Amino acid sequence: MIKVGIIGGAGYTAGELIRLLLNHPDVEIQFVNSSSNAGNKIVSVHEGLYGETDLVFTDELPLDEIDVLFFCTAHGDTRKFMESHQIPEGLKLIDLSMDYRLKSDDHDFIYGLPELNRRAICHSQHVANPGCFATCIQLGLLPLAKHSLIQSDVMVNAITGSTGAGVKPSTTSHFSWRNNNMSIYKPFQHQHIPEVKQSLAQLQEGFNTNIDFIPYRGDFARGIFATLVVKCDLDEEQLYQLYEDYYAEDSFVFIIHENIDLKQVVNTNKCLLHLEKHDDKLLIVSCIDNLLKGASGTAVHNMNLMFNLEETVGLKLKPSAF
Amino acid sequence: MIKVGIIGGAGYTAGELIRLLLNHPDVEIQFVNSSSNAGNKIVSVHEGLYGETDLVFTDELPLDEIDVLFFCTAHGDTRKFMESHQIPEGLKLIDLSMDYRLKSDDHDFIYGLPELNRRAICHSQHVANPGCFATCIQLGLLPLAKHSLIQSDVMVNAITGSTGAGVKPSTTSHFSWRNNNMSIYKPFQHQHIPEVKQSLAQLQEGFNTNIDFIPYRGDFARGIFATLVVKCDLDEEQLYQLYEDYYAEDSFVFIIHENIDLKQVVNTNKCLLHLEKHDDKLLIVSCIDNLLKGASGTAVHNMNLMFNLEETVGLKLKPSAF
Amino acid sequence: MIKVGIIGGAGYTAGELIRLLLNHPDVEIQFVNSSSNAGNKIVSVHEGLYGETDLVFTDELPLDEIDVLFFCTAHGDTRKFMESHQIPEGLKLIDLSMDYRLKSDDHDFIYGLPELNRRAICHSQHVANPGCFATCIQLGLLPLAKHSLIQSDVMVNAITGSTGAGVKPSTTSHFSWRNNNMSIYKPFQHQHIPEVKQSLAQLQEGFNTNIDFIPYRGDFARGIFATLVVKCDLDEEQLYQLYEDYYAEDSFVFIIHENIDLKQVVNTNKCLLHLEKHDDKLLIVSCIDNLLKGASGTAVHNMNLMFNLEETVGLKLKPSAF
Amino acid sequence: MIKVGIIGGAGYTAGELIRLLLNHPDVEIQFVNSSSNAGNKIVSVHEGLYGETDLVFTDELPLDEIDVLFFCTAHGDTRKFMESHQIPEGLKLIDLSMDYRLKSDDHDFIYGLPELNRRAICHSQHVANPGCFATCIQLGLLPLAKHSLIQSDVMVNAITGSTGAGVKPSTTSHFSWRNNNMSIYKPFQHQHIPEVKQSLAQLQEGFNTNIDFIPYRGDFARGIFATLVVKCDLDEEQLYQLYEDYYAEDSFVFIIHENIDLKQVVNTNKCLLHLEKHDDKLLIVSCIDNLLKGASGTAVHNMNLMFNLEETVGLKLKPSAF
Repeated sequence: MIKVGIIGGAGYTAGELIRLLLNHPDVEIQFVNSSSNAGNKIVSVHEGLYGETDLVFTDELPLDEIDVLFFCTAHGDTRKFMESHQIPEGLKLIDLSMDYRLKSDDHDFIYGLPELNRRAICHSQHVANPGCFATCIQLGLLPLAKHSLIQSDVMVNAITGSTGAGVKPSTTSHFSWRNNNMSIYKPFQHQHIPEVKQSLAQLQEGFNTNIDFIPYRGDFARGIFATLVVKCDLDEEQLYQLYEDYYAEDSFVFIIHENIDLKQVVNTNKCLLHLEKHDDKLLIVSCIDNLLKGASGTAVHNMNLMFNLEETVGLKLKPSAF
Repeated sequence: MIKVGIIGGAGYTAGELIRLLLNHPDVEIQFVNSSSNAGNKIVSVHEGLYGETDLVFTDELPLDEIDVLFFCTAHGDTRKFMESHQIPEGLKLIDLSMDYRLKSDDHDFIYGLPELNRRAICHSQHVANPGCFATCIQLGLLPLAKHSLIQSDVMVNAITGSTGAGVKPSTTSHFSWRNNNMSIYKPFQHQHIPEVKQSLAQLQEGFNTNIDFIPYRGDFARGIFATLVVKCDLDEEQLYQLYEDYYAEDSFVFIIHENIDLKQVVNTNKCLLHLEKHDDKLLIVSCIDNLLKGASGTAVHNMNLMFNLEETVGLKLKPSAF
Repeated sequence: MIKVGIIGGAGYTAGELIRLLLNHPDVEIQFVNSSSNAGNKIVSVHEGLYGETDLVFTDELPLDEIDVLFFCTAHGDTRKFMESHQIPEGLKLIDLSMDYRLKSDDHDFIYGLPELNRRAICHSQHVANPGCFATCIQLGLLPLAKHSLIQSDVMVNAITGSTGAGVKPSTTSHFSWRNNNMSIYKPFQHQHIPEVKQSLAQLQEGFNTNIDFIPYRGDFARGIFATLVVKCDLDEEQLYQLYEDYYAEDSFVFIIHENIDLKQVVNTNKCLLHLEKHDDKLLIVSCIDNLLKGASGTAVHNMNLMFNLEETVGLKLKPSAF
Repeated sequence: MIKVGIIGGAGYTAGELIRLLLNHPDVEIQFVNSSSNAGNKIVSVHEGLYGETDLVFTDELPLDEIDVLFFCTAHGDTRKFMESHQIPEGLKLIDLSMDYRLKSDDHDFIYGLPELNRRAICHSQHVANPGCFATCIQLGLLPLAKHSLIQSDVMVNAITGSTGAGVKPSTTSHFSWRNNNMSIYKPFQHQHIPEVKQSLAQLQEGFNTNIDFIPYRGDFARGIFATLVVKCDLDEEQLYQLYEDYYAEDSFVFIIHENIDLKQVVNTNKCLLHLEKHDDKLLIVSCIDNLLKGASGTAVHNMNLMFNLEETVGLKLKPSAF
């Protein structure tokens, strides 16, 4: 059994991770750390867990009792933790924050997008889990980048569920405001763009066009639905082939010829991609569940790879569908 | 023109009151007081007002410039205000908090439910606006009380929109939690029951059965939908007649023979009532918009009565319907 | 492997059943019958199944190739089917319609509520799966009935998600109408009451009070949230003990001391029960996922029992939580 | 009083038109024609009208009793009607279908977008009311076209409420499907693009770039929220000035410097526009209520203009806000 510890245990991604790991056949959760909730029962904070666990939040950190540590920490806090703690040799780390996603000489984290870096992840001790928007966007573009086909700016519109904004209540997560509402934020300036560009540049030498990204706040809780538009000379059939080839070995990405919708992926670890060519423009529709494929599902996926398990273990989830 | 001041101007009921008063032909808003928002534009806080007003929140209180003062204050704060301020003679007061709803020798506020106390309101200087749940429940029961027909406990289940819980973000108003969720709170113990009982006792001598009330948090923003069940010997036809008679002179209560639904009243000042008799039990369905008939709409209604205007002025609203 | 056939494969309960069975380790779906969809791919009708199956709807019925047949048929259609087809000896039947829920000399179906009839189900060839509302209500009352404690009328208010009304579009399932709306239907007359009364009478000799049931249409897709109120002399502690004892051996019913909410059970096969005593009245809050514990989850539960599997196989689902 | 007739009275735009006209001080509704609902009460079909009208649908067409006829007909049906009926001389026509929106020698309808064609509308007998998406998109682009600034393809993403798809139930308007879902339809091919291009070409000589439009189905009932991206050399300040100048005389379009959200226009006849410049790209956010500014509100606006009324009469609506 893989022994797991979780830091930042009171947030949404931690909750989803716990919901996943409790049903994972090869995992035992050793501790869930949350200073603010120390002593409280997990079931009193995270929805849906009655009858599944007696775990209690702890403010201790017995790092020598675990095989892997998941950081469900706020951005910035993983780095602070790394700088202030001695990490036992051999302890694997999976960081869901954005602290180590960008390559740098000052760390050895691998960017944990399995569809891009599977082999490296398998041999890595430290993995930086991708951002939710970043995952949804990259998966729609990687096959193009691999063939150096991104030669114009890419227009991306993507709508996220409210869980993407975290558990802390705010004006824009207030039900009265968000219900039946629609708005954008940080247009052309979202913090996930650098990691998207890093991945595209990894595959496409000399990549240097813009990713013009407008994030929308959706009035639903789970999921990201994105449309991407980019100029492209290939025809639809060629493009489908190219995408199917790229994802041929991947367990969670599916290329769909019919029109797709968000609820087809909600509560699953899937990414669905749909392609349409209109004149010289390629439209890519990409959707994922932000808490699963966009966060905790991929974290488990990465763990599976790092521990040499079959990659889908614990991730064959019944879709909620409705 | 009636000159109006508003205290507690940043909350939901103040916002709704402002949206109403800006279109009221006989009213001029003189000031909107909010210490936390002093200096900010009204339109930057309250949805839907772009192009309608240049008003700015103030922390001043020029009480001698106004004819009527609306308290959109938190419960307890109106009383504090009254105790610490000199109210100019002749200034009319309409209090949307619950501070003065229960009769007492230490104040002269009239309980401002027009369908119960119209005449008294017309001649009153100080009106205590009813609670939202209290309004929805009372309107379903007043005709029975008038004929001393409430002889058994009344079972009330009522679902409220999230605006009923106020603008301050909280766990249960977080979109991620509330969306598609359902829950109850304060069952059998809601703070609106005493005012309901007070009104029933006003009409039905010796009234002393229970109002067993279960409030539900609904996953919508506006409205209250209530079902009331009480034993009753009259048949359906007699009951319809009794309700129609009771509300014959009222502008905003409608007795509907067909099944009703909440959106028929949303964004209106109406209360719809539907009756069904099943064996010895009477089912009453009652619905209102909590921000209008349940709060600011009735506040304007009371103002109209206090200033001898036709009672529907400023309250003939286009229903949103969807 | 248990070989499974499904009739009425295009509806919501069939979709949920397929989503469950594709991940069930001991089951192989042999065919999904749907005359209207014959030839179409399952994934083109049921949300969430891309990448999980290549199955195609069939209009054939190779009953001799299967071990168990699930009827996801409209009410009335199972009976018609039984009267017009020869059922192979040894073929187990699980009927999700309401055709055989009430005991009668003209059939041998066992009422398939495991918490009431586990032993009989284990030895049965033919099982009538309970109604969704009926499940939610009964589970809240069985422990009382076992101790003959239902001595007054029971008031039940229960709100159901839109999937309870089926896949066929109608006025009250139109998004524009139902979104943010609330309404009731069939008050005091719902078709699930007889099966509830049958179960209560099975445990409580001479049971003969009313189940006064008001069903509400909720503006969410999945789940049933019910409150039940009944007079009772026991105190809260005694009642919790009584409920915990009754469900001690059951895998899916949990007695919760804290206030509960619907999303704690959505996308799970759980039923949560919460109790509160207010004066002489007992309030029971009961919630389930109507498509799982209220339909297809219990159908799989019954299959597990009929085939002597551990009862939770295939039913340990990650909650959607949001 | 202007005497009004309505054809196609059972649909959403007719319902909204009736809700508006019942409160319009200068209008009397003479008849509402609906063959399928003849004899039924208006209030039994259209939400929110209890207590406001005793009108009954008719299958008669007393065209000589009215001053203006509103066509709330399905696309194609206005043309059929015009070809099969004798229109009395002097009867004004306002067509909400798309039959006469494109200029042609075979008809004399004026395209009824007041912000583009106010003067022509004032002197017109026949007005073709714009499409909802078309209104939202055009209002975001007209000031640019006026200054010949649309020199590159325009990328438009716009999300519409479910009422945009009409009252007839369908798979994609089923609550179970649409709730919390997101999807697109007719990308790059929506039927409103030709009228948008016609308007832009009216202002910008030689206009011939693409309007690349992706329509989204939103999980809300009312409103359209659009983002438009186009290359532009002017800076943000110049652009704000240009937009403010263009709409200086218009009553319902507001240029907002702060970020905007959809609910700021819901249940109003407003269009809000917000501008941001990012490098060489101009982002325009535009939102309207699809049933008001996008349909029936503009129809009343056009009527006001055609009858020489102040243009805002009957259109100063309390926003629903929540």
